[in-house]
Amino acid sequence: MKFSPLLTELIEALRCLPGVGPKSAQRMAFHLLERNRRGGAVLADALQQALDKVGHCQRCRTYTEQDVCDICASPKRQASGVLCVVESPADIVAVEQSGQFHGRYFVLMGHLSPLDGIGPADIGLDQLQRAFSAGDLKEVILATNPTVEGEATAHYIADMANSCGLHASRIAHGVPVGGELESIDGTTLAHSFAGRKRVE
Amino acid sequence: MKFSPLLTELIEALRCLPGVGPKSAQRMAFHLLERNRRGGAVLADALQQALDKVGHCQRCRTYTEQDVCDICASPKRQASGVLCVVESPADIVAVEQSGQFHGRYFVLMGHLSPLDGIGPADIGLDQLQRAFSAGDLKEVILATNPTVEGEATAHYIADMANSCGLHASRIAHGVPVGGELESIDGTTLAHSFAGRKRVE
Repeated sequence: MKFSPLLTELIEALRCLPGVGPKSAQRMAFHLLERNRRGGAVLADALQQALDKVGHCQRCRTYTEQDVCDICASPKRQASGVLCVVESPADIVAVEQSGQFHGRYFVLMGHLSPLDGIGPADIGLDQLQRAFSAGDLKEVILATNPTVEGEATAHYIADMANSCGLHASRIAHGVPVGGELESIDGTTLAHSFAGRKRVE
Repeated sequence: MKFSPLLTELIEALRCLPGVGPKSAQRMAFHLLERNRRGGAVLADALQQALDKVGHCQRCRTYTEQDVCDICASPKRQASGVLCVVESPADIVAVEQSGQFHGRYFVLMGHLSPLDGIGPADIGLDQLQRAFSAGDLKEVILATNPTVEGEATAHYIADMANSCGLHASRIAHGVPVGGELESIDGTTLAHSFAGRKRVE
Protein backbone atom coordinates (compact mmCIF):
# COMPACT_ATOMS: atom_id res chain seq x y z
CA MET A 1 0.00 0.00 0.00
CA LYS A 2 1.18 3.48 -0.85
CA PHE A 3 -0.40 6.90 -0.45
CA SER A 4 -3.47 7.87 -2.44
CA PRO A 5 -2.78 8.53 -6.18
CA LEU A 6 -2.87 12.36 -6.00
CA LEU A 7 -0.67 12.43 -2.89
CA THR A 8 1.80 10.02 -4.52
CA GLU A 9 1.88 12.26 -7.60
CA LEU A 10 2.54 15.35 -5.47
CA ILE A 11 5.39 13.61 -3.60
CA GLU A 12 6.89 12.46 -6.91
CA ALA A 13 6.54 15.96 -8.40
CA LEU A 14 8.25 17.61 -5.41
CA ARG A 15 11.30 15.45 -6.08
CA CYS A 16 12.06 17.53 -9.18
CA LEU A 17 13.31 20.22 -6.79
CA PRO A 18 17.07 20.12 -6.30
CA GLY A 19 18.19 18.51 -3.02
CA VAL A 20 14.77 16.97 -2.33
CA GLY A 21 14.72 13.20 -1.84
CA PRO A 22 11.75 10.88 -1.12
CA LYS A 23 11.64 11.62 2.62
CA SER A 24 11.87 15.41 2.23
CA ALA A 25 9.26 15.33 -0.53
CA GLN A 26 6.91 13.41 1.75
CA ARG A 27 7.51 15.84 4.59
CA MET A 28 6.86 18.80 2.26
CA ALA A 29 3.64 17.28 0.92
CA PHE A 30 2.34 16.57 4.44
CA HIS A 31 3.33 20.05 5.61
CA LEU A 32 1.49 21.71 2.72
CA LEU A 33 -1.64 19.57 3.11
CA GLU A 34 -1.78 19.72 6.89
CA ARG A 35 -0.38 23.05 7.96
CA ASN A 36 -0.11 25.40 5.02
CA ARG A 37 -2.72 24.88 2.32
CA ARG A 38 -2.77 28.60 1.63
CA GLY A 39 1.01 28.66 1.14
CA GLY A 40 0.68 25.66 -1.16
CA ALA A 41 -1.96 27.38 -3.28
CA VAL A 42 0.22 30.50 -3.50
CA LEU A 43 3.17 28.32 -4.53
CA ALA A 44 1.20 26.48 -7.22
CA ASP A 45 0.04 29.81 -8.64
CA ALA A 46 3.45 31.53 -8.42
CA LEU A 47 5.10 28.56 -10.10
CA GLN A 48 2.55 28.49 -12.92
CA GLN A 49 2.84 32.24 -13.44
CA ALA A 50 6.64 32.21 -13.42
CA LEU A 51 6.83 29.27 -15.84
CA ASP A 52 4.35 30.93 -18.17
CA LYS A 53 5.85 34.40 -18.16
CA VAL A 54 9.45 34.52 -16.97
CA GLY A 55 11.92 34.30 -19.83
CA HIS A 56 15.34 35.72 -20.56
CA CYS A 57 16.17 39.38 -21.15
CA GLN A 58 16.93 39.82 -24.87
CA ARG A 59 20.07 41.78 -24.10
CA CYS A 60 21.65 40.39 -20.93
CA ARG A 61 19.93 36.96 -20.66
CA THR A 62 18.90 37.41 -17.02
CA TYR A 63 15.45 36.26 -15.92
CA THR A 64 12.66 38.74 -16.58
CA GLU A 65 9.03 38.71 -17.60
CA GLN A 66 9.61 41.70 -19.91
CA ASP A 67 11.45 41.62 -23.24
CA VAL A 68 14.28 43.64 -21.73
CA CYS A 69 15.10 43.73 -18.01
CA ASP A 70 15.04 46.91 -15.91
CA ILE A 71 18.83 47.31 -15.91
CA CYS A 72 19.15 46.89 -19.68
CA ALA A 73 16.24 49.31 -20.18
CA SER A 74 17.99 52.05 -18.19
CA PRO A 75 19.57 54.64 -20.55
CA LYS A 76 22.14 55.60 -17.87
CA ARG A 77 23.32 51.99 -17.61
CA GLN A 78 23.46 51.68 -21.39
CA ALA A 79 25.51 54.87 -21.67
CA SER A 80 28.10 53.69 -19.12
CA GLY A 81 29.95 51.64 -21.71
CA VAL A 82 30.92 49.04 -19.09
CA LEU A 83 29.69 45.45 -19.27
CA CYS A 84 30.00 43.00 -16.40
CA VAL A 85 29.90 39.31 -17.35
CA VAL A 86 28.48 37.01 -14.64
CA GLU A 87 27.48 33.35 -14.51
CA SER A 88 24.03 33.61 -12.94
CA PRO A 89 21.20 36.09 -12.29
CA ALA A 90 21.94 35.71 -8.56
CA ASP A 91 25.40 37.19 -9.23
CA ILE A 92 23.74 40.37 -10.58
CA VAL A 93 21.91 40.76 -7.27
CA ALA A 94 25.17 40.24 -5.35
CA VAL A 95 27.05 42.82 -7.46
CA GLU A 96 24.17 45.30 -7.25
CA GLN A 97 24.16 44.97 -3.46
CA SER A 98 27.82 46.05 -3.39
CA GLY A 99 26.67 49.35 -4.91
CA GLN A 100 29.99 49.72 -6.76
CA PHE A 101 28.95 48.94 -10.31
CA HIS A 102 26.70 51.08 -12.48
CA GLY A 103 27.09 49.48 -15.88
CA ARG A 104 25.28 46.71 -17.75
CA TYR A 105 25.46 42.96 -17.26
CA PHE A 106 25.65 39.87 -19.39
CA VAL A 107 24.53 36.59 -17.81
CA LEU A 108 26.15 33.42 -19.16
CA MET A 109 23.70 31.12 -17.33
CA GLY A 110 26.59 28.76 -16.68
CA HIS A 111 30.23 28.44 -17.66
CA LEU A 112 32.26 26.69 -20.33
CA SER A 113 32.50 23.01 -19.46
CA PRO A 114 33.62 20.91 -22.43
CA LEU A 115 33.37 17.68 -20.41
CA ASP A 116 29.64 18.32 -19.88
CA GLY A 117 29.26 19.35 -23.53
CA ILE A 118 28.74 23.03 -22.67
CA GLY A 119 30.43 25.09 -25.37
CA PRO A 120 30.52 28.82 -26.24
CA ALA A 121 27.11 28.82 -27.96
CA ASP A 122 25.42 27.27 -24.89
CA ILE A 123 26.43 30.18 -22.67
CA GLY A 124 25.44 32.82 -25.24
CA LEU A 125 28.93 33.82 -26.35
CA ASP A 126 27.70 34.40 -29.93
CA GLN A 127 25.31 37.01 -28.55
CA LEU A 128 28.12 38.47 -26.40
CA GLN A 129 30.33 38.68 -29.49
CA ARG A 130 27.65 40.80 -31.21
CA ALA A 131 27.54 43.10 -28.14
CA PHE A 132 31.34 43.42 -28.31
CA SER A 133 31.15 44.28 -32.03
CA ALA A 134 28.39 46.90 -31.55
CA GLY A 135 30.99 49.50 -30.65
CA ASP A 136 29.32 51.12 -27.61
CA LEU A 137 31.48 49.34 -25.01
CA LYS A 138 34.71 50.55 -23.40
CA GLU A 139 35.40 47.85 -20.85
CA VAL A 140 34.36 44.32 -20.04
CA ILE A 141 34.58 43.23 -16.39
CA LEU A 142 34.81 39.45 -16.01
CA ALA A 143 33.01 38.49 -12.80
CA THR A 144 32.65 34.74 -13.35
CA ASN A 145 33.14 32.54 -10.30
CA PRO A 146 36.71 31.95 -9.04
CA THR A 147 36.55 28.24 -9.98
CA VAL A 148 38.54 26.39 -12.64
CA GLU A 149 35.63 26.60 -15.10
CA GLY A 150 34.92 30.22 -14.21
CA GLU A 151 38.55 31.19 -14.80
CA ALA A 152 38.65 29.32 -18.12
CA THR A 153 35.44 31.04 -19.21
CA ALA A 154 36.87 34.43 -18.18
CA HIS A 155 40.03 33.81 -20.21
CA TYR A 156 38.00 32.77 -23.25
CA ILE A 157 35.85 35.90 -23.06
CA ALA A 158 38.92 38.10 -22.44
CA ASP A 159 40.39 36.78 -25.71
CA MET A 160 37.11 37.59 -27.51
CA ALA A 161 37.11 41.11 -26.04
CA ASN A 162 40.76 41.76 -26.87
CA SER A 163 40.26 40.68 -30.46
CA CYS A 164 37.47 43.30 -30.69
CA GLY A 165 39.86 45.92 -29.29
CA LEU A 166 38.07 46.03 -25.94
CA HIS A 167 39.74 46.31 -22.56
CA ALA A 168 38.89 43.24 -20.44
CA SER A 169 39.48 43.05 -16.68
CA ARG A 170 39.04 40.31 -14.08
CA ILE A 171 37.68 41.03 -10.61
CA ALA A 172 40.39 40.79 -7.90
CA HIS A 173 41.01 37.58 -5.97
CA GLY A 174 42.22 37.87 -2.42
CA VAL A 175 41.39 37.68 1.25
CA PRO A 176 37.66 38.41 1.92
CA VAL A 177 37.06 41.44 4.14
CA GLY A 178 36.38 40.30 7.72
CA GLY A 179 37.95 36.87 7.10
CA GLU A 180 40.70 35.40 9.23
CA LEU A 181 44.01 34.74 7.52
CA GLU A 182 44.47 31.34 9.15
CA SER A 183 41.22 30.03 7.66
CA ILE A 184 41.96 31.16 4.08
CA ASP A 185 43.15 28.54 1.61
CA GLY A 186 46.64 28.66 0.05
CA THR A 187 45.57 29.50 -3.51
CA THR A 188 43.57 32.51 -2.33
CA LEU A 189 46.47 33.71 -0.19
CA ALA A 190 48.84 33.27 -3.15
CA HIS A 191 46.48 35.43 -5.26
CA SER A 192 46.28 37.90 -2.42
CA PHE A 193 50.08 38.23 -2.24
CA ALA A 194 50.51 38.41 -6.02
CA GLY A 195 47.88 41.15 -6.21
CA ARG A 196 49.27 43.20 -3.32
CA LYS A 197 49.03 46.98 -3.50
CA ARG A 198 51.54 49.51 -2.27
CA VAL A 199 50.43 51.38 0.87
CA GLU A 200 51.20 55.06 0.49
CA MET B 1 17.79 45.75 -7.34
CA LYS B 2 16.16 42.41 -6.82
CA PHE B 3 14.87 39.78 -9.21
CA SER B 4 11.91 40.46 -11.48
CA PRO B 5 8.52 40.54 -9.64
CA LEU B 6 7.29 37.09 -10.71
CA LEU B 7 10.64 35.48 -9.91
CA THR B 8 10.71 37.19 -6.50
CA GLU B 9 7.18 35.90 -5.85
CA LEU B 10 8.19 32.36 -6.81
CA ILE B 11 11.24 32.46 -4.51
CA GLU B 12 9.09 33.78 -1.65
CA ALA B 13 6.43 31.12 -2.30
CA LEU B 14 8.98 28.29 -2.28
CA ARG B 15 9.98 29.32 1.24
CA CYS B 16 6.67 27.97 2.56
CA LEU B 17 8.20 24.49 2.13
CA PRO B 18 9.71 23.13 5.35
CA GLY B 19 13.50 23.39 5.54
CA VAL B 20 13.75 25.79 2.59
CA GLY B 21 15.49 29.11 3.30
CA PRO B 22 16.13 32.06 0.96
CA LYS B 23 19.21 30.49 -0.74
CA SER B 24 17.59 27.09 -1.31
CA ALA B 25 14.43 28.77 -2.61
CA GLN B 26 16.52 30.77 -5.10
CA ARG B 27 18.37 27.64 -6.20
CA MET B 28 15.06 25.80 -6.63
CA ALA B 29 13.52 28.64 -8.66
CA PHE B 30 16.56 28.85 -10.95
CA HIS B 31 16.65 25.08 -11.33
CA LEU B 32 12.98 24.94 -12.34
CA LEU B 33 13.22 27.87 -14.76
CA GLU B 34 16.51 26.84 -16.31
CA ARG B 35 16.68 23.07 -16.30
CA ASN B 36 13.30 21.58 -15.54
CA ARG B 37 10.36 23.66 -16.75
CA ARG B 38 8.43 20.48 -17.47
CA GLY B 39 9.00 19.24 -13.93
CA GLY B 40 7.90 22.62 -12.62
CA ALA B 41 4.67 22.52 -14.62
CA VAL B 42 3.97 18.99 -13.37
CA LEU B 43 4.63 20.18 -9.80
CA ALA B 44 2.33 23.20 -10.11
CA ASP B 45 -0.42 20.97 -11.46
CA ALA B 46 0.09 18.16 -8.91
CA LEU B 47 0.08 20.67 -6.08
CA GLN B 48 -3.11 22.34 -7.29
CA GLN B 49 -4.83 18.97 -7.77
CA ALA B 50 -3.76 17.66 -4.36
CA LEU B 51 -4.84 20.84 -2.57
CA ASP B 52 -8.19 20.79 -4.35
CA LYS B 53 -9.00 17.13 -3.87
CA VAL B 54 -6.98 15.45 -1.11
CA GLY B 55 -8.80 15.48 2.21
CA HIS B 56 -9.03 13.15 5.17
CA CYS B 57 -10.61 9.70 5.22
CA GLN B 58 -13.89 9.95 7.16
CA ARG B 59 -13.06 6.87 9.18
CA CYS B 60 -9.30 6.81 9.79
CA ARG B 61 -8.32 10.42 9.01
CA THR B 62 -5.48 9.50 6.63
CA TYR B 63 -5.04 11.50 3.42
CA THR B 64 -7.26 10.41 0.57
CA GLU B 65 -9.14 11.97 -2.31
CA GLN B 66 -12.09 9.64 -1.69
CA ASP B 67 -14.56 9.85 1.20
CA VAL B 68 -13.15 6.67 2.68
CA CYS B 69 -9.61 5.39 2.01
CA ASP B 70 -8.87 2.02 0.39
CA ILE B 71 -7.96 0.32 3.67
CA CYS B 72 -11.11 1.51 5.46
CA ALA B 73 -13.19 0.48 2.43
CA SER B 74 -11.89 -3.11 2.58
CA PRO B 75 -14.48 -5.42 4.23
CA LYS B 76 -11.70 -7.84 5.30
CA ARG B 77 -9.90 -5.10 7.16
CA GLN B 78 -13.14 -3.95 8.77
CA ALA B 79 -13.94 -7.47 9.91
CA SER B 80 -10.53 -7.95 11.55
CA GLY B 81 -11.64 -6.12 14.69
CA VAL B 82 -8.12 -4.75 15.25
CA LEU B 83 -7.37 -1.03 15.12
CA CYS B 84 -3.84 0.39 14.94
CA VAL B 85 -3.44 3.99 16.13
CA VAL B 86 -0.59 5.91 14.42
CA GLU B 87 0.52 9.54 14.41
CA SER B 88 0.90 10.15 10.68
CA PRO B 89 -0.16 8.73 7.28
CA ALA B 90 3.52 7.91 6.67
CA ASP B 91 3.36 5.52 9.62
CA ILE B 92 0.59 3.56 7.86
CA VAL B 93 2.91 3.06 4.89
CA ALA B 94 5.70 1.89 7.23
CA VAL B 95 3.43 -0.59 9.05
CA GLU B 96 1.97 -1.86 5.77
CA GLN B 97 5.49 -2.49 4.46
CA SER B 98 6.16 -4.77 7.42
CA GLY B 99 3.34 -6.98 6.15
CA GLN B 100 2.45 -8.05 9.71
CA PHE B 101 -0.74 -6.11 10.27
CA HIS B 102 -4.04 -6.70 8.52
CA GLY B 103 -6.45 -4.57 10.51
CA ARG B 104 -7.64 -0.96 10.28
CA TYR B 105 -5.86 2.23 11.21
CA PHE B 106 -6.64 5.47 12.94
CA VAL B 107 -4.37 8.45 12.18
CA LEU B 108 -4.05 11.07 14.91
CA MET B 109 -2.28 13.59 12.62
CA GLY B 110 -0.05 14.54 15.55
CA HIS B 111 0.15 13.76 19.25
CA LEU B 112 -1.10 15.26 22.50
CA SER B 113 1.03 18.30 23.32
CA PRO B 114 -0.61 20.53 25.95
CA LEU B 115 2.28 23.04 25.78
CA ASP B 116 1.50 23.65 22.10
CA GLY B 117 -2.23 23.74 22.84
CA ILE B 118 -2.89 20.40 21.14
CA GLY B 119 -5.56 18.59 23.13
CA PRO B 120 -7.61 15.40 22.59
CA ALA B 121 -10.09 17.03 20.17
CA ASP B 122 -7.25 18.27 17.91
CA ILE B 123 -5.99 14.74 17.28
CA GLY B 124 -9.48 13.34 16.66
CA LEU B 125 -9.89 11.46 19.95
CA ASP B 126 -13.63 12.25 20.03
CA GLN B 127 -13.94 10.40 16.72
CA LEU B 128 -11.77 7.57 18.08
CA GLN B 129 -14.02 7.36 21.16
CA ARG B 130 -17.02 6.81 18.86
CA ALA B 131 -15.09 4.03 17.06
CA PHE B 132 -14.34 2.42 20.44
CA SER B 133 -18.02 2.62 21.42
CA ALA B 134 -19.25 1.14 18.12
CA GLY B 135 -18.65 -2.38 19.46
CA ASP B 136 -16.93 -3.98 16.44
CA LEU B 137 -13.38 -3.78 17.87
CA LYS B 138 -11.49 -6.43 19.83
CA GLU B 139 -8.06 -4.86 20.20
CA VAL B 140 -6.39 -1.47 19.86
CA ILE B 141 -2.68 -1.45 18.99
CA LEU B 142 -0.96 1.79 20.00
CA ALA B 143 1.77 2.53 17.46
CA THR B 144 2.49 6.17 18.27
CA ASN B 145 6.13 7.26 18.13
CA PRO B 146 8.44 6.21 21.00
CA THR B 147 8.83 9.84 22.14
CA VAL B 148 7.63 11.46 25.36
CA GLU B 149 4.55 12.90 23.61
CA GLY B 150 3.91 9.65 21.73
CA GLU B 151 4.03 7.65 24.97
CA ALA B 152 1.73 10.09 26.77
CA THR B 153 -0.71 9.94 23.85
CA ALA B 154 -0.59 6.12 23.89
CA HIS B 155 -1.34 6.06 27.64
CA TYR B 156 -4.25 8.46 27.20
CA ILE B 157 -5.76 6.33 24.42
CA ALA B 158 -5.13 3.12 26.38
CA ASP B 159 -7.21 4.58 29.24
CA MET B 160 -9.99 5.45 26.78
CA ALA B 161 -9.90 1.93 25.34
CA ASN B 162 -9.88 0.24 28.76
CA SER B 163 -12.89 2.26 29.90
CA CYS B 164 -14.75 0.95 26.83
CA GLY B 165 -13.75 -2.60 27.78
CA LEU B 166 -11.28 -2.90 24.91
CA HIS B 167 -7.87 -4.57 25.09
CA ALA B 168 -5.12 -1.99 24.30
CA SER B 169 -1.52 -2.95 23.52
CA ARG B 170 1.62 -0.94 22.85
CA ILE B 171 4.15 -1.96 20.17
CA ALA B 172 7.39 -3.33 21.64
CA HIS B 173 10.40 -1.10 22.27
CA GLY B 174 13.84 -2.64 21.96
CA VAL B 175 16.97 -3.04 19.89
CA PRO B 176 16.28 -2.56 16.16
CA VAL B 177 17.04 -5.63 14.04
CA GLY B 178 20.44 -5.21 12.35
CA GLY B 179 21.53 -2.54 14.83
CA GLU B 180 24.71 -2.70 16.87
CA LEU B 181 24.32 -2.83 20.64
CA GLU B 182 27.08 -0.31 21.29
CA SER B 183 25.33 2.37 19.26
CA ILE B 184 21.92 1.96 20.97
CA ASP B 185 20.96 4.53 23.62
CA GLY B 186 20.47 3.55 27.27
CA THR B 187 16.70 4.04 27.42
CA THR B 188 16.16 1.73 24.46
CA LEU B 189 18.46 -0.88 25.98
CA ALA B 190 16.59 -0.61 29.29
CA HIS B 191 13.30 -1.22 27.42
CA SER B 192 14.93 -4.09 25.59
CA PHE B 193 16.03 -5.74 28.87
CA ALA B 194 12.70 -5.13 30.58
CA GLY B 195 10.84 -6.64 27.62
CA ARG B 196 13.13 -9.71 27.32
CA LYS B 197 11.57 -13.00 26.22
CA ARG B 198 12.47 -16.46 27.36
CA VAL B 199 14.33 -18.52 24.76
CA GLU B 200 12.95 -22.03 24.67
